[in-house]
Amino acid sequence: MPKRLTLALAALAAAFAAPALAGIGPQIANFTLSNGLEVIVIPDHRAPVVTHMVWYKVGSADETPGKSGLAHFLEHLMFKGTAKNPAGRFSQLKDMMEFEADRMTGLVLTDEVVRPELNVVLEEQNMRVANNPAARLGEQMDAALYLNHPYGRPVIGWRHEIEQLNRDGALEFYRRFYTPNNAILVVAGDVTPEEVRALAQETYGKVPRVAETKPRLRPQEPVQEAPRTVTLADPRVTQPSLSRYYLVPSSTTAPAGESEALDLLTHILGHGPNSRLYRTLVVDKGVAVSAGASYDGTAVDNTRLSVFGTPKPETSLPQLEEAIDAVLADLIDNGVTAEELERAKSRMIANAVYANDNQRMLAQWYGASLATGATVEDVRAWPDRIRLVTADAVRDAARRWLDKRRSVTGYLVKDTRHEEKRS
Amino acid sequence: MPKRLTLALAALAAAFAAPALAGIGPQIANFTLSNGLEVIVIPDHRAPVVTHMVWYKVGSADETPGKSGLAHFLEHLMFKGTAKNPAGRFSQLKDMMEFEADRMTGLVLTDEVVRPELNVVLEEQNMRVANNPAARLGEQMDAALYLNHPYGRPVIGWRHEIEQLNRDGALEFYRRFYTPNNAILVVAGDVTPEEVRALAQETYGKVPRVAETKPRLRPQEPVQEAPRTVTLADPRVTQPSLSRYYLVPSSTTAPAGESEALDLLTHILGHGPNSRLYRTLVVDKGVAVSAGASYDGTAVDNTRLSVFGTPKPETSLPQLEEAIDAVLADLIDNGVTAEELERAKSRMIANAVYANDNQRMLAQWYGASLATGATVEDVRAWPDRIRLVTADAVRDAARRWLDKRRSVTGYLVKDTRHEEKRS
Repeated sequence: MPKRLTLALAALAAAFAAPALAGIGPQIANFTLSNGLEVIVIPDHRAPVVTHMVWYKVGSADETPGKSGLAHFLEHLMFKGTAKNPAGRFSQLKDMMEFEADRMTGLVLTDEVVRPELNVVLEEQNMRVANNPAARLGEQMDAALYLNHPYGRPVIGWRHEIEQLNRDGALEFYRRFYTPNNAILVVAGDVTPEEVRALAQETYGKVPRVAETKPRLRPQEPVQEAPRTVTLADPRVTQPSLSRYYLVPSSTTAPAGESEALDLLTHILGHGPNSRLYRTLVVDKGVAVSAGASYDGTAVDNTRLSVFGTPKPETSLPQLEEAIDAVLADLIDNGVTAEELERAKSRMIANAVYANDNQRMLAQWYGASLATGATVEDVRAWPDRIRLVTADAVRDAARRWLDKRRSVTGYLVKDTRHEEKRS
Repeated sequence: MPKRLTLALAALAAAFAAPALAGIGPQIANFTLSNGLEVIVIPDHRAPVVTHMVWYKVGSADETPGKSGLAHFLEHLMFKGTAKNPAGRFSQLKDMMEFEADRMTGLVLTDEVVRPELNVVLEEQNMRVANNPAARLGEQMDAALYLNHPYGRPVIGWRHEIEQLNRDGALEFYRRFYTPNNAILVVAGDVTPEEVRALAQETYGKVPRVAETKPRLRPQEPVQEAPRTVTLADPRVTQPSLSRYYLVPSSTTAPAGESEALDLLTHILGHGPNSRLYRTLVVDKGVAVSAGASYDGTAVDNTRLSVFGTPKPETSLPQLEEAIDAVLADLIDNGVTAEELERAKSRMIANAVYANDNQRMLAQWYGASLATGATVEDVRAWPDRIRLVTADAVRDAARRWLDKRRSVTGYLVKDTRHEEKRS
């Protein structure tokens, strides 16, 4: 899955780090095959099922400029056949591992395979982006948030560049990034590390290194010092809305504790009906029908913290923005209370305990974290790091990172066909 | 000169194309040496002086992402010594040609040469950009105007990337782009084509091709559909101002006649005290102390048309913007009059006749045009193409390209240290 991870995953992060400490964690095994494939085994014997995932350390930010969409396109092509496995699926673990090991380097990418799949991707872009004004605004906001870094490109690619993708480009990308020494195998479920190791050696262990990996050095952002806005008007918009992206550190780029402070800041600011944004804008002032915030620290480079709101019909977007800015300013000036910080910590850790049952999500959290530079220990110790965050650290994070100069504000409005007027 | 050409040059374009028809043009000679070097000779025998220029078909848009500033850095390094010419300058044409031919491929780039020059470039960035709020706003506006194309990067480079440039990168860039088959020699002045050809063969003719050139295919822009704004606040700003960049075709990308229609549109809109913007905003409404527009079609890919204004102290930026938008809307709705179109054509062609005396500028115009894909004939025929533009074509260009969805508006304001308020 070459995609940048979305908020959903960050929430799940909270859900799964704690159980690691509560029993699952200590049994996690982590080893590397001689061809460089890293293996994580998360035993979970409550039911006779196994979750199996292969993560490749590559994403849209690793694409050659002008070929946006290649990483996502390869994700599609990975479901095509190899010489050994022209078609078919397997349900047993060993069969699955043989199948995955085979397609790690053995994919058959002919024009007959590639061309129709490109149409599938174009149709996906059509459905998810071209016909979705909010998604289009999001694309334009990312492009305005990142002045230099490739995260400014849509994961699915710019449509005009997707249209130009072809077999040669896909093959080149595949040969460059799909190699055991650039991958992480995560197996969770009713298995032991010994079983997985034996099976992995028998299957993945036979896959040769086809490329050497390079450090993932992407063009970084210059100093951001000018707030931006982006306005998207579309006749299909029935509900105007406002969102703001701030450029903030990820768990990979942040100094110790700062990504966790941003986790808690975002939770206090915008998760659920007790959050400051919801309480102030929806409940107290009645200017919004919804409001919230999100942050996903799981990224190689600096990422975004989002704040968003949907106004009531009688509220204008500038009025809503002013109300949101007042909530942010209060948090920046006065910080958070000890009580709300404790409540946020308890809620995030409790969510982890409750969500413990979902084996797939647990595997996904480990895979996503390790693919972006974290260690098993980093993931396991996340609840401890959350517990250590002080109210001062949250206020400092707000003060430092909720800086409008590092932001873009997006307005989604109904197109009234008077484009020369500002909306 | 690897820089993207500025408006100054576009104005000069007007200045020099007409004389070509009036006598200088027909004598222009254009030939190519066997190593691929293109040569333009512009005889001008009025005084015993010669202008000599070498243009390389490379610019900041050709840099590897993450290494912005390389093209500009090489421009600096080209003034360093070669093995043959460790130092010194020449005033005679043949000496000059030998010197230029030598440094086309013979530059000695040691750390002792490269490191101090990098400090010179950093100091230049400091002076021209870092300490100049309007220049910083311009950088941020370009980054917001171009969602995907490398024209979004500053020509001088992002400071954090300039800091990382080094000898290896400079040498790689030099070897890739500095080769006779990627260069244009322009010699104007008291010479004959025969003399220049003989001298060129004796000097440049001995330079081997060191690299093959590739088509200059840069990532192109996606559909632009969301107007953007960028606000830069700085305590040193004493005079707020507003500018807007529209993404428009260049003379290379435009269909026949459209770049010339944009030339005339820009002239009517914003050149001089008779222009619509100046007359309406400064003279009639008295809301601005200055206002204007600029467009430079000399670029390989789509480029920008700028509109700008400086408000009177009692006028706010939103009020000024509304007044500018009204001028644009009127032009879009009602087009231009036959009288103002004729006046603009006469003025642009007359400027060309008056400016005829500047040999250096004439050479520069040919060099810039040919380096971005035009032919000698394209340059010579520019006045004819200007004469052919109709009022309808100007109105159509305004209607099509003065589309706010393809624009970014920049606000330069005094920093009042209340960043949470929108200014």
